Amino acid sequence: MTTSSHTDETFNIGIFLYQGVEELDFCGPFEVLKAASYTRSEKGQNPVWQVFTVAEEPGLLKTSGELLIQPHFTFHNHLHIDLLVVPGGLASSQVKKPAVLEWLRKVTSQAQLNTSVCTGAFLLGAVGLLDGHTVTTHWSALDELARQYPRARVEREVRWVDEGRLVTAAGISAGMDMSLHLVERLAGRELAEEVAHYMEYRWQEQSSHHSAAE
Amino acid sequence: MTTSSHTDETFNIGIFLYQGVEELDFCGPFEVLKAASYTRSEKGQNPVWQVFTVAEEPGLLKTSGELLIQPHFTFHNHLHIDLLVVPGGLASSQVKKPAVLEWLRKVTSQAQLNTSVCTGAFLLGAVGLLDGHTVTTHWSALDELARQYPRARVEREVRWVDEGRLVTAAGISAGMDMSLHLVERLAGRELAEEVAHYMEYRWQEQSSHHSAAE
Repeated sequence: MTTSSHTDETFNIGIFLYQGVEELDFCGPFEVLKAASYTRSEKGQNPVWQVFTVAEEPGLLKTSGELLIQPHFTFHNHLHIDLLVVPGGLASSQVKKPAVLEWLRKVTSQAQLNTSVCTGAFLLGAVGLLDGHTVTTHWSALDELARQYPRARVEREVRWVDEGRLVTAAGISAGMDMSLHLVERLAGRELAEEVAHYMEYRWQEQSSHHSAAE
Repeated sequence: MTTSSHTDETFNIGIFLYQGVEELDFCGPFEVLKAASYTRSEKGQNPVWQVFTVAEEPGLLKTSGELLIQPHFTFHNHLHIDLLVVPGGLASSQVKKPAVLEWLRKVTSQAQLNTSVCTGAFLLGAVGLLDGHTVTTHWSALDELARQYPRARVEREVRWVDEGRLVTAAGISAGMDMSLHLVERLAGRELAEEVAHYMEYRWQEQSSHHSAAE
């Protein structure tokens, strides 16, 4: 299903896109994770990360706000994904699609890290990844997430929750804070702070680290 | 040059896109300004704003991080622009293009508000809009902006500068703070706070209001 052009040197970050995806949910993490691969100038080497978008089918997608995005890959031709980012938006329309759930099961079983932003958590929940974990989502969806996934413990008023292989973020802009945390976890604190400085972004760090795989 | 489908009821917000535009520079303002048109539920009506992207020519554009974006309109078929947003990125490649400068001269002379994010300020400078004004840009470009536009006063360590018809923001993420300020200015404080809450975004407000047209 996926093209294996994965080498030991490259870490591949795939962002799932779909009709009605919330623009900042994917664009924020894209900016942060991509910047981690090119911002460093003086203090060391940047990690070799590829950041790309993947959708079910080829062709333009409309975001929730009707930006028009062309995904880099489809389910059928994308690179191996080491870190999956599932953004929110009209995620409820995606959880009903067998092809999406099949793809998510396959990719999440092979990825080193599965992450969500906002209501993207519902998509990880739909393939069973939230069960037994502490998770979060957009403030307006916390109750519904707890209702739909009673085996997950839903955390309120955090920017993200790191459960090791699973990391979930709160709503929309919190995806940037989670992504800076991922940069720190994968490539060190210094680079995460450099990326935040480059973006002129004030990193909000009030997260809970329950069972982070440090 | 521009299609006039402007009515009194609609306020049109045009975001200029080009090859190498920094993704968060345009996606942050797009998210904020678009959300202002749909987030309000209980407390009142949303303003009728159209938010769209405009590029020189049709076809896909690659952002600085190589996201693929399809602009909604070209220079030759876009709606009237009341509020122009000029994001940064590879702005230096655009200031050399006569067609871009001609378009900017025309649009900025007709718009109610001309704004920039990050190095987008250089494009407003290229058509003379910074002269005699206090302005800002990305921290790494402050000195260069002052050098290229000696008749502008370059402000440091602010998120944005509101000079009435001209509003410039600092780097990348500061475009969201400026956009929330624009929401406040155009539609009231309450809506700006609702949008920030919807986005779970902590609005950074340390700006300078020199001659804001309040």
